[in-house]
Amino acid sequence: MTTATDTAATQASVAEANRSRILRHLYHHGISSRAQIAKAVGLTPAAITKITAQLIEIGLIDETGDIEGAKNRRSIGLKLDASRFHIIGVKFARSLVQIGIFDLAGQTIKLDTLPNVYEHTIDETIASIHKRIKTMLSKDGSIVAIGMAVPGPYLRNAGHTAVVSSMQGWRRINFIEEFTHAFRVPVFIEQDARAGALANYLLFPGNRTDNLAYYLIGEGVGLGVIDNGRIINGALGVASEIGHVSIDVNGRACDCGNVGCLERYCSAPAIHAMLVEEGTLVPDAAGMEHAEACRRLFLLAQEGNAQARAMVRTIGRYVGYGCLIIFNTFNPERIVIGDIVSEAGQALLDEIERVVEQRAIGAIAETTTITLSTMPTDATVLGAAAVATTQFLDHPSQFFPLK
Amino acid sequence: MTTATDTAATQASVAEANRSRILRHLYHHGISSRAQIAKAVGLTPAAITKITAQLIEIGLIDETGDIEGAKNRRSIGLKLDASRFHIIGVKFARSLVQIGIFDLAGQTIKLDTLPNVYEHTIDETIASIHKRIKTMLSKDGSIVAIGMAVPGPYLRNAGHTAVVSSMQGWRRINFIEEFTHAFRVPVFIEQDARAGALANYLLFPGNRTDNLAYYLIGEGVGLGVIDNGRIINGALGVASEIGHVSIDVNGRACDCGNVGCLERYCSAPAIHAMLVEEGTLVPDAAGMEHAEACRRLFLLAQEGNAQARAMVRTIGRYVGYGCLIIFNTFNPERIVIGDIVSEAGQALLDEIERVVEQRAIGAIAETTTITLSTMPTDATVLGAAAVATTQFLDHPSQFFPLK
Repeated sequence: MTTATDTAATQASVAEANRSRILRHLYHHGISSRAQIAKAVGLTPAAITKITAQLIEIGLIDETGDIEGAKNRRSIGLKLDASRFHIIGVKFARSLVQIGIFDLAGQTIKLDTLPNVYEHTIDETIASIHKRIKTMLSKDGSIVAIGMAVPGPYLRNAGHTAVVSSMQGWRRINFIEEFTHAFRVPVFIEQDARAGALANYLLFPGNRTDNLAYYLIGEGVGLGVIDNGRIINGALGVASEIGHVSIDVNGRACDCGNVGCLERYCSAPAIHAMLVEEGTLVPDAAGMEHAEACRRLFLLAQEGNAQARAMVRTIGRYVGYGCLIIFNTFNPERIVIGDIVSEAGQALLDEIERVVEQRAIGAIAETTTITLSTMPTDATVLGAAAVATTQFLDHPSQFFPLK
Repeated sequence: MTTATDTAATQASVAEANRSRILRHLYHHGISSRAQIAKAVGLTPAAITKITAQLIEIGLIDETGDIEGAKNRRSIGLKLDASRFHIIGVKFARSLVQIGIFDLAGQTIKLDTLPNVYEHTIDETIASIHKRIKTMLSKDGSIVAIGMAVPGPYLRNAGHTAVVSSMQGWRRINFIEEFTHAFRVPVFIEQDARAGALANYLLFPGNRTDNLAYYLIGEGVGLGVIDNGRIINGALGVASEIGHVSIDVNGRACDCGNVGCLERYCSAPAIHAMLVEEGTLVPDAAGMEHAEACRRLFLLAQEGNAQARAMVRTIGRYVGYGCLIIFNTFNPERIVIGDIVSEAGQALLDEIERVVEQRAIGAIAETTTITLSTMPTDATVLGAAAVATTQFLDHPSQFFPLK
C-alpha cells in the first residue's frame, strides 16, 4: 500500500536504494563481478558501472584481481572490505552495560563490560559511556558509526524507555538527547530484541529470511520482528513488546500495570524468583545474579536432576505460549530464541515444540521454524552494532558524500 | 531496511509509484491543480505534466474548468471521477455471503445478501457467486475489479482459510483457484479485518493514519494492521490473527487447537452462548442467529436492564484485553472497533477504556485512540471493495495499458 505521506520516489532516493542494493549484495555474497551484481539486483550493466565507479571513488568498495565469471570468461571482481570499517555497539540492560568495537562482518575487535549498574549509579554509568566512546573514537579512525540497544518498551521516537521492570531509573534517560549529537559519528538507537533480529538477519545466513522474529528471553522478554523485509516499529516504536502481552488475564501483576505478562513467567528474574521460592535446588540462589542462578538450574537439568528438568519443562511451556502469540500476531517464517534462557538448550526446545504441536494452528506450525540462537548470550551488544551496520548498508549517503 | 530480495527500483516501478501518488492525491483531496499536486507529492511540475497527460489520455482522470490557485491565479483543475469506475465487493463470513457493487468512493450501487450458508450448501453458494458476478459484469461495463474479504486465519498465499470456527467446510475452498481467473476483471482476496482496515484508511478521513488497526468483533474476532503505511501480512498471510491469541493459557478450548483464544470470550457466538447459558435475559436466544441474540442483549442494556449492562461490561473487559494485546504487539495510533459487537456502543467503549486505564502502559494509553467504527455493521463487504480500490489506486497499470 502506498500512502499519501510517502516521500515521492525522487532521483536521489532511487540512487540511494540502488547503491544500497549493490552494497548489500557484496556484503552478503562476497567478491562479485559487475555482471553478477547486475543480474542479482536487476539493474542494467550501465547503471552498475556508474554506481560502482562512485563507490570505488569514495573508497567504500574496491576492485580485486580477475575472478572467474560466466562461461569461463575472466572479469574484474568488486569487494566490500568488511574489516576496514568499524562500528561501536553499546548494550544497555537493567544492570549491565557492554561496549564493543566490531567490524562490519560482526567480528569482535574489543569488548568491555562496565561495572554493574544500580539505580544510584546510572548517571555515573552514562558519564563513563561518554568517556569510553570518546577514547575509542580518538584511537580508532576507522569507526564510522555507533549502534545502541536498549531494553523495550523503548519509545523510539521520544528516546526513552516506557517501563524497565525492577530498574525504573533508566526511564529518566533520554537516549536520543544524551547520545545522538555527542560524537563525531552518527548514533542509531534501537530496542534490544529488534537489534537482535537485525544481527541475525545480517550475520547468520541461515536466519536470513524476510519474515524473521528474534525472541529475546533474558533479564526481560522482548521481540523484534522483520515482516516482509521491514522492521515493525509501531506508532511510538513500542510494537512487538511481547514481554508485556498477558498470557493470563487473572495472572501475576507486572510493573507495567498489566496482569499476567509473559515476562513474569519466563524471564531470568522470574526463573530466579522460582528458584529462591523453591529453596532446595539451588540453595544459595538468593545471593546470585539472575543469569548465574539460571545457569545453575540449566546445568542441574543437563546433569539429569529430575526436579531441575521439570522446572526447565515448565519454563519451556511458558516460552512456548509466547511462540503461539508470535505465530498468531506476526506469523514469521523463523523464530530465533536468544539470550540467557536459550542456554537451557534442547530440553527447552523440546518442550516448546510440544506446546506448539498441542496448541498451534497446523498450517502455521508446519511452516515456522523455531531455533535457539547461535549467537553468544551477550549478543545484544553485537545486535547494537548490527543496528548501525544496517544503516551503513541501507543509507551510505549518511556516511559518505554521495548524491 | 532494504533486503536482498527487494526488486530493484526500476524506471517502471518508479513511474508506477509516482502515478499512484498523483491518483491518491486526487482521490483523497478532490479537484487539484497540477501545481497543488506537485507541491503535495514532491515531484517537479514537469513530471506532473507528463504523468497527468498520460492519465488523461487513457481516461483515468479529467481536466475540469478553471479553479482558484495560489495568489488568486486561475489554473486548470484535475479530477479523478470516483463514480465512473465500479468495484464488486464480496464478503464471506461463516454463514453469510454478501455481494455489492460500489464506486471508488465506496458509494453503494447495489447490495445483495445470499441465502444463509450451511456446511452442505457451500458448493451451491460458490456456484451462485460465480453466476451473480458474471451477470453483474455483463450488465455494468464500468466494473474494473473484484475484491473479496474472507475470514481469517486466511492463508493468503495458498488461498484458503486455516481454521473457521464452527464452519470448517469453508477450509475446502481455495479462493485463489476458484475466483482469480474466472472473470474479465482482476480479483483481489484479503482477510476480512485487513479489508476493514483498508476501508477505514480509504474512506474515513478521520481514520487515515499510517498506523491503523481495525479490530473486527463479529462472528469471529480479527485484526488488520497498517504499520507505517503497510499492511502486515506475515509469511503465510496469517499475521494479526488476534482472535486466536490466548488471554488465558488455562482457559476455554478453541477449534484452532489453542486454549483461551480471545475469540472464545467476546465474539458474537461466544456472547450468544453466554445468553443461552444464562437463560432468562433473552429467553428465546437459543433459536436466534448470533447477531440477533447480541442485538437483543445490547438493546436491553441500552434500556437500562442491570443484568444486561453487567454482561456488556464483561464483554467490554474482554474486548479491552484484546486492545492491550494490540497495544503491546502492534502499537497503532488508532484502533477502530467494528462489526456486530461494536453495536453495544458507548457502554462497551467505557469498559474498554477502564481496562486500558487500569492495565496499559501509560505512554501507549495516552497516545492511542480507540473508537467504534462508523461504518455500517455489514461494512466488510465495503472492505472487500476497498481491497480492490486500493489496488486500483496503487497499481493502475494492472488495469490500464500504462508503461
